[in-house]
Amino acid sequence: MTATADSVRVHPGFELGADVTLEDFVILGKPFAAMAQDDRGGLGAHSVIRSHTVIYAATRIGARFQCGHHVLIRERTRIGADCSVGTGSVVEHHVRIGDGVRLHSNVFVPEFSTLHDGCWLGPNVVLTNAKYPRSPRVKDELVGPTIMPGAKIGANTTVLPGVTIGANALVGAGSVVVRDVPADAVVVGNPARIIKSITDLPYDLESLNANC
Amino acid sequence: MTATADSVRVHPGFELGADVTLEDFVILGKPFAAMAQDDRGGLGAHSVIRSHTVIYAATRIGARFQCGHHVLIRERTRIGADCSVGTGSVVEHHVRIGDGVRLHSNVFVPEFSTLHDGCWLGPNVVLTNAKYPRSPRVKDELVGPTIMPGAKIGANTTVLPGVTIGANALVGAGSVVVRDVPADAVVVGNPARIIKSITDLPYDLESLNANC
Amino acid sequence: MTATADSVRVHPGFELGADVTLEDFVILGKPFAAMAQDDRGGLGAHSVIRSHTVIYAATRIGARFQCGHHVLIRERTRIGADCSVGTGSVVEHHVRIGDGVRLHSNVFVPEFSTLHDGCWLGPNVVLTNAKYPRSPRVKDELVGPTIMPGAKIGANTTVLPGVTIGANALVGAGSVVVRDVPADAVVVGNPARIIKSITDLPYDLESLNANC
Repeated sequence: MTATADSVRVHPGFELGADVTLEDFVILGKPFAAMAQDDRGGLGAHSVIRSHTVIYAATRIGARFQCGHHVLIRERTRIGADCSVGTGSVVEHHVRIGDGVRLHSNVFVPEFSTLHDGCWLGPNVVLTNAKYPRSPRVKDELVGPTIMPGAKIGANTTVLPGVTIGANALVGAGSVVVRDVPADAVVVGNPARIIKSITDLPYDLESLNANC
Repeated sequence: MTATADSVRVHPGFELGADVTLEDFVILGKPFAAMAQDDRGGLGAHSVIRSHTVIYAATRIGARFQCGHHVLIRERTRIGADCSVGTGSVVEHHVRIGDGVRLHSNVFVPEFSTLHDGCWLGPNVVLTNAKYPRSPRVKDELVGPTIMPGAKIGANTTVLPGVTIGANALVGAGSVVVRDVPADAVVVGNPARIIKSITDLPYDLESLNANC
Repeated sequence: MTATADSVRVHPGFELGADVTLEDFVILGKPFAAMAQDDRGGLGAHSVIRSHTVIYAATRIGARFQCGHHVLIRERTRIGADCSVGTGSVVEHHVRIGDGVRLHSNVFVPEFSTLHDGCWLGPNVVLTNAKYPRSPRVKDELVGPTIMPGAKIGANTTVLPGVTIGANALVGAGSVVVRDVPADAVVVGNPARIIKSITDLPYDLESLNANC
C-alpha cells in the first residue's frame, strides 16, 4: 500500500488481493445498516483505488480494477475483472457489472442496474431507476436500466428506468433515452431516436448528432 | 462520533445535536471570508454526515439530516428537519430548504434558491441563478429557482434562473425547464412543455418522456 | 498553510508560490505512471486549494488560483493566472487553460481541450473528446473542444469533440453543441442552433431558451 496507514481505513471483513494500491483518505469495507454477520467483500489483485474513494462492505470487485478519485461504490454490488470507474462517479448498491466495463467521470448508476461486459459510459452519464416516482411503493418498484455487451453511451446522456440499451449500440452525447434501443442501433436526441445502424457507417459521433 | 478524532475537523461555533454521527475526513463549520464575530451554525440531533463532506460555518441544519459522501454545503444556508443530500451534491450559500426535502447525488443548487417542503431532486439535477450572465452586475442580479412543496424533478434536468416549479409538479428526466411550471403539471423535453396533469394519470415517467 | 501538516500531502517537485493556502486532505504533485525524472509542476502565489482536492505532478498553475473542494486536476496541464475551478470539477491531463478562466462546479474537461482567456463554463458542463468511440485507435484520435476568449457556456451543456465555441459566444443552459459556434452567436437546444447575436440584445438567458 502506498498510503500511510493512518490515512486509509480498511474495515474488517474486506479482503484485498495481491499487489493492491490504496491512496490517501480511502475507506474500504465501510459497514452499513442492514449488514449481516457473515457478509464479506473484497477487491481483486493488482487493483488501484485512488484517493478519497469509498467502497462499502459486502461488495466484490474483480482483478485489475482501476478506480478514480472521490468515487463511491455502495454495498452488495458485484463488479467483474478489468473494469474502471472514473473520478466522482457513484455506483449504488445491488448493481451488477460484468468484465471490462468502463465508467468515465461523474457517472451515476442507481441500484438494480445491470451493465454487461465491455460496455462504456461517458462522463456525467446518468442512469435512473424510479419508474413510478409518485407511487407510495416507489422503493419496491425500482427497476434499473440494462446495458448490453459492448454498448457505448455518450457523455451527459440520461437513461430512463427499465430501458435496455442493446449490444454494441451507440447513444450520442446529451441524449435522453426513454425506450429500448436495439442492438447495433445508433440513437441521438431528446427523446433519443434511431438514426442509423453502427454497421452502416462512420465512427463519427459528431456528425451523428448533427443529423438529428 | 464514529470517526477518529484526528480525521474530523469541527470548527468552533458549530453546534452538534445529540447522537450525531461524523464519518472520516469530514469538515464542519468551516470559516469563510465575510464571517461575522457572532455567526453560529449547527446540525440537528440524530444526523449522519458521511465521509469527506464539508459544511461551512453559519449554516443551520435540522434534525435527522442524512448526508452522503463528498458533499459541499456553503455558509448562511438553512435546511429544515428530515432532509437528505446525496453524494457529490453541492448546495451553495444563502439557500433556503424546507422540511423533508431530498436531493439525490451530484445535484447542484446555486445561491438564492428556495426549495419548499417535501420536494425531490433526482441525480445530477442542476438549478441555475445567473439570469444575466453578460451583465456587469451579474452578482447583484442572481435569482435562483423556487421549487414548491412536493414537486419532483427528474434526473439530469436543468432549471433556468428564476423559474418556479409548482406544487406537486413532475419534471421528466433530462428536461431543460425555461419557464414556470404550474402546480400539478407534468412537463418534459428541451425546452420542457406541459404534456398532462399528474391528476390525469399514470405513475409512469418513462411513458411520459416517450410521448414528448 | 492553514491545514495541519499530517492531513496534506505535497509531493517533491511541486513548487508552491508565496502565500498559498492548502486546506485539509489535499494532495499536490501526485506522481503518475509516465512521469519523467525532471518533470516539475507548481502553483502560483496567493492561491487557495480547498479541502479534498488532488492536483497531479507536472501541472503548472498561475497566481491567484481559486480551487473548490473535491477537485481533480491531472498531469501536464497548464492553467494561467486568476483562474478558478469549482467544487467537484475534473480537469484531465494535457489541457490548456488561459488567464481569467472560470469553471463552475462539477465541470468535466477532457484531455487536449483548449480554454482561452476569460471564458466561463457553468455548473455540470461536459466537454468531450472521443470523436470516434468505436475506432480501434480512439486514443490517438482524441480531439477536445476549443473555447475561444470570453465565451460563456450555460449549465449542464454538452460540447461534442473538436467543436470550437467562438469568442464571446453564449450557449444556453442544457444545450448539446454538435458543430462550431461563430463568435458572438447565441445558441440553444439539442442540437444547439443559432437564435441570435449577443450584440442584438438582451442579457436574458431565460428568454433565449424559451424561444428555441
